[in-house]
Amino acid sequence: MPVISFADLSEKVEAILLKAGFDDLHADALARIVAAGERDGAKSHGIYRLDGILRTLAAGKVSPDAQPVIDDEDSGIIRVEAGGAFSPAAFEAGLPLLADRAHDLGIAAMVINDCVHFSALWPEVEALAERGVAGLSMCPSYSAVAPAGGTRPLLGTNPIAFGWPRLDDAPYVFDFATSVAARGEIELKRRAGEPLPEGWALDADGHPTTDPEAALSGAMLPFGGHKGSAISTMVELLAGVMIGDLTSDAALSALGTTTLAPRHGQLILAFSPERFAAGRSNPFAQAELLFSAILGQGARLPGERRHQIRARSMAEGIHLSDEEMAGLDALLAG
Amino acid sequence: MPVISFADLSEKVEAILLKAGFDDLHADALARIVAAGERDGAKSHGIYRLDGILRTLAAGKVSPDAQPVIDDEDSGIIRVEAGGAFSPAAFEAGLPLLADRAHDLGIAAMVINDCVHFSALWPEVEALAERGVAGLSMCPSYSAVAPAGGTRPLLGTNPIAFGWPRLDDAPYVFDFATSVAARGEIELKRRAGEPLPEGWALDADGHPTTDPEAALSGAMLPFGGHKGSAISTMVELLAGVMIGDLTSDAALSALGTTTLAPRHGQLILAFSPERFAAGRSNPFAQAELLFSAILGQGARLPGERRHQIRARSMAEGIHLSDEEMAGLDALLAG
Repeated sequence: MPVISFADLSEKVEAILLKAGFDDLHADALARIVAAGERDGAKSHGIYRLDGILRTLAAGKVSPDAQPVIDDEDSGIIRVEAGGAFSPAAFEAGLPLLADRAHDLGIAAMVINDCVHFSALWPEVEALAERGVAGLSMCPSYSAVAPAGGTRPLLGTNPIAFGWPRLDDAPYVFDFATSVAARGEIELKRRAGEPLPEGWALDADGHPTTDPEAALSGAMLPFGGHKGSAISTMVELLAGVMIGDLTSDAALSALGTTTLAPRHGQLILAFSPERFAAGRSNPFAQAELLFSAILGQGARLPGERRHQIRARSMAEGIHLSDEEMAGLDALLAG
Repeated sequence: MPVISFADLSEKVEAILLKAGFDDLHADALARIVAAGERDGAKSHGIYRLDGILRTLAAGKVSPDAQPVIDDEDSGIIRVEAGGAFSPAAFEAGLPLLADRAHDLGIAAMVINDCVHFSALWPEVEALAERGVAGLSMCPSYSAVAPAGGTRPLLGTNPIAFGWPRLDDAPYVFDFATSVAARGEIELKRRAGEPLPEGWALDADGHPTTDPEAALSGAMLPFGGHKGSAISTMVELLAGVMIGDLTSDAALSALGTTTLAPRHGQLILAFSPERFAAGRSNPFAQAELLFSAILGQGARLPGERRHQIRARSMAEGIHLSDEEMAGLDALLAG
């Protein structure tokens, strides 16, 4: 099984993206995100995503070189116009301002408009946590999920990620789709020829199914029944409608296919725990008591497995399959 | 079956609370909240709560007359010190400032510290929606829920409510416990002698149970497995730890019982859709397209049933049982 360092994998992916036509800014930002997915064992957000990135570029549905434009009117909102490019460079452009504004006002928001989206959200809330602020990030995707009680795709898989800075540990981070499963997980099941667990999806007629093909042409279901459905709807409202950008339904209509990365917006909220606590207590120390109590009864923290795999990847390198490595080399040569 | 108007029920409850020793400010604010629960068919937040309110007062665990003190340092955070009184008066004191700040900055937060909490959160996000801002409200409660993978109570039922202003309709509002069920629902099952659905709770040994008694002395479970558990943990972090107030675990330790209303803090976020949309589109009109699409496939909006019952209550009066009405009269006479 081939092993590659995080730095070498990032470089290889960056070279593939440069060769495909992305400029330095975007090739660099995208490569770090894709390599981070592999490094953390988040296979559905790793090099598996390269196909979609390159297909979206080839279809002319993403700008390879639009420069993020920041609109900062000194309110609680930092707006970054992505110009139809992928989101990671836009996020990185706005990040220092967002963190500073959160420290100034206690709370602030970054709006990314007109970005194309494929990445997980945890790298963003981790980056905020490194700057001492808690973060809550969310975005629509494209219609793939039926609302609770419905029969057809309308909501996106609408991920939500949250990060909290920790004193001596990697930040507390969760990042999940508000569908029962991420679309990537169903796609991986399809590729592996495995059935889906019950409760993941409806077929095209609105009936429950465990067939990945039927699910991909039907609808996924929200996690947690009507509660998850309500949260997913909130994501459409806050990170679609409210920011003057597309809902998942509109994103799918605009793109016309689920095989390319969708274009829409994103919302990232940032909170300064020090400002919120206002000297009443040390919020970072208090948070550790909560984490200890969770771990103390044998439960796990959500980012735990990812950070264990990351530590191993950084120590031993990242394990890829022969097929995966050959795929990368083919893209680089091709 | 006795029928009583919303105004008369509010007045009756207010008289009970005044008689018990609450001052005008708190008796009025509490009575409107309790009566609104009955009006909307939210039985677990209606007059059923009077017992707990009066018990908490009799135990000396809530101030009947502390005046909310606002600390507004002109940042994104409006802080209201409740002084150990119930939360509704503190919320109402901060509400106009919160809405104004959201209109000014785009985003703002209200922190309520040192409040005693028993009420549903939907009245708050409805009040924000009436002022044209979207709201997200959350608070801890006291340890009653085991984290996913755990065995013992640690998290609270940690409700989350969200509201979105609508043009010609009652606002879009959801409000739910991040436990599978609210504690009040389990209590009502116990009183009715009915078993719980599977998956609601663990017994004192950490094993699944359907017995309400066993559940109340064991642990409830979060909704949506590890995802709901992560969201509930986020509520502890943002609306407990971050605001320099108690987690559910600390609230229970401080109070020593689950039979009284717990003392902790609350966090309410407010968003101005106009400021966020910044002229790119009309967010209120766009939201209606989403709601129509949800309704168009036969699914329901989360606040729908509550608003139907409200309309009926306002037209026909609120139906109480003979026992409920007698209970109110006994409290008033007693």
